[in-house]
Amino acid sequence: MSGVIYEKVALIGLGLIASSITHAAKRTGLVGEFTGYARSQETRDTARELDLCTVYDTAAEAVEGADLVILCVPVGAMGSVMKDIAPHLKSGATLSDVGSVKRAVIEAVEPYVPEDVHFVPAHPLAGTEHSGPRSGFAELFDNRWNIVVPASDYTDRDAVERLKTFWKGLGALVDEMDADHHDLVLAVTSHTPHLIAYTMVGVADDLARVTDTEVVNYSAAGFRDFTRIAASDPTMWRDVFLTNKDATLEILGRFTEELFALQRAIRTGDGDHLHDYFTRTRSIRRGIIEAGQDTDAPNFGRGPANT
Amino acid sequence: MSGVIYEKVALIGLGLIASSITHAAKRTGLVGEFTGYARSQETRDTARELDLCTVYDTAAEAVEGADLVILCVPVGAMGSVMKDIAPHLKSGATLSDVGSVKRAVIEAVEPYVPEDVHFVPAHPLAGTEHSGPRSGFAELFDNRWNIVVPASDYTDRDAVERLKTFWKGLGALVDEMDADHHDLVLAVTSHTPHLIAYTMVGVADDLARVTDTEVVNYSAAGFRDFTRIAASDPTMWRDVFLTNKDATLEILGRFTEELFALQRAIRTGDGDHLHDYFTRTRSIRRGIIEAGQDTDAPNFGRGPANT
Ligand SMILES: NC(=O)c1ccc[n+]([C@@H]2O[C@H](COP(=O)([O-])OP(=O)(O)OC[C@H]3O[C@@H](n4cnc5c(N)ncnc54)[C@H](OP(=O)(O)O)[C@@H]3O)[C@@H](O)[C@H]2O)c1
Ligand SMILES: NC(=O)c1ccc[n+]([C@@H]2O[C@H](COP(=O)([O-])OP(=O)(O)OC[C@H]3O[C@@H](n4cnc5c(N)ncnc54)[C@H](OP(=O)(O)O)[C@@H]3O)[C@@H](O)[C@H]2O)c1
Repeated sequence: MSGVIYEKVALIGLGLIASSITHAAKRTGLVGEFTGYARSQETRDTARELDLCTVYDTAAEAVEGADLVILCVPVGAMGSVMKDIAPHLKSGATLSDVGSVKRAVIEAVEPYVPEDVHFVPAHPLAGTEHSGPRSGFAELFDNRWNIVVPASDYTDRDAVERLKTFWKGLGALVDEMDADHHDLVLAVTSHTPHLIAYTMVGVADDLARVTDTEVVNYSAAGFRDFTRIAASDPTMWRDVFLTNKDATLEILGRFTEELFALQRAIRTGDGDHLHDYFTRTRSIRRGIIEAGQDTDAPNFGRGPANT
Repeated sequence: MSGVIYEKVALIGLGLIASSITHAAKRTGLVGEFTGYARSQETRDTARELDLCTVYDTAAEAVEGADLVILCVPVGAMGSVMKDIAPHLKSGATLSDVGSVKRAVIEAVEPYVPEDVHFVPAHPLAGTEHSGPRSGFAELFDNRWNIVVPASDYTDRDAVERLKTFWKGLGALVDEMDADHHDLVLAVTSHTPHLIAYTMVGVADDLARVTDTEVVNYSAAGFRDFTRIAASDPTMWRDVFLTNKDATLEILGRFTEELFALQRAIRTGDGDHLHDYFTRTRSIRRGIIEAGQDTDAPNFGRGPANT
């Protein structure tokens, strides 16, 4: 894959996702020039030090003349950031975002989108538990899906296709769906699992009868996987739950129902129910490995921990 | 570490844990000779093919003359296996196990332990989602804890210390605690997390409005970590929940309470509650990484999935 797709790309927010976009694009020269803006002086200085892009002290300056503007801030900040940059967007530019929730971002951003700007929301399903401008890396999106969610049926198809080509150039696989379905799918594959992991880690942390040292030392038996997820950025995840409320609550309701059924099976000693349930859940794992979305190496093939 | 600690060690059950014991011991020559037995002809044949140990067709023959006998079968099978081998144990031998639950194993096994045999239960907190004789590897126990749980206050201290030295020789760190505390600690760090992961994967599998292909493709956003845990052996885990019922139900109760509080915060839009909770859970992760119980590499440093 080569050839410049957008001459000038502006990134608003310079954290994990934005910095990974710059690293990935530099592998193949997809983008003529990156500009960027972050809220704090500290992040802007770091981005300059890392030479991620041309960093401006205001979002308005960063988007000036950009062919593609990507909002890379927490979901709850999209609206206010958009309000700031709206008057400065170039005519004919594409505006996109990487937010983990789509309906709420569309509702927050769309009112400010100028008529001559194409709004094409998207969500790269790739992340890590780390955040900030130093956490990005070029391979983050490789072989991971990016779900493009055109804000309306009238969105310019050329703008949509060009954004898809861009993300493919960053290494991603691309799919398209509507915002509500995206939010439901993500409630299942990401948001509810995160809430559950946060909860489990909170419980372990709270329990007076088991010390923190015990929790830490004996975490390799399963718990440590939850702590990775529960180490993700609190602001990002607060925003996700506040803005994908309905779908998350729906899936949580289903989760609680199933958990109660398993709890009852434990209480009544119904081994067959447990065994059947635990057998059924294995096939999804096989599907994920076959689809290349995870490794089959034991324990994710994680390297030996240091002593 | 070198020098033979036990001349002859018998492994009853030849799956992940037993095969890893043989591989780990062979690195340093801790054991003169391994003998073994598994229930099925198929597993016995595989173990012979892999040259794991001298495989016998009955457990009675395998334990004949062994200085250490380790029960490596699911927790629910420990009692019946013990009943079979009890008359054949050598006087002065040490009897141990690797079961994930300790109180129930002690209750099932102890009645059959001859007076001249030292019963020293233990639990290596190391495993993977794979099982069977082919899944073992020498590094499984490296830098992982093994909790030794002497069956009574009268257990011979020399036998306990020798078993500890053996596990250290296999690469493990060793701790000692009583059975009830072990079962509570493990309910927190392993059993409840597994039940929750199984539940979440079951919910995703069941949901008619989200297809299995969507769940599989979009799993990299968090869900895939749960599927690894939920791919663990159904028999082993059924037995764990049936035999560590009280502690698991207690921790599940605490979990449900916390989950309801977070659910309420989502419903009422209480962002501060969510943000505080998500901030608190990060410190445990740091503790685990500092203790060498997990890697700090993003996404566990898992290799790129195949395309
Ligand atoms: N992390 C993931 O796993 C992941 C995956 C897919 C999508 N996403 C989505 O990607 C977006 C960015 O996530 P990230 O992981 O890259 O986050 P991050 O590393 O924490 O970076 C967030 C960036 O947004 C800026 N920012 C935060 N609040 C702001 C505000 N109110 N006004 C202006 N700028 C603000 C931050 O600036 P300062 O540094 O100056 O505070 C920072 O540069 C989020 O919408 C998230 O939902 C994340
Ligand atoms: N996997 C983990 O993550 C982990 C970690 C720590 C401790 N443990 C504990 O270690 C023990 C073994 O686990 P594993 O992972 O090694 O299991 P595994 O790979 O499934 O192997 C279990 C072995 O036990 C044999 N077995 C099963 N039921 C039996 C019965 N009723 N009578 C006689 N033999 C029987 C099996 O024989 P066949 O192959 O012929 O059926 C197999 O050889 C369990 O108590 C488990 O709780 C497991």
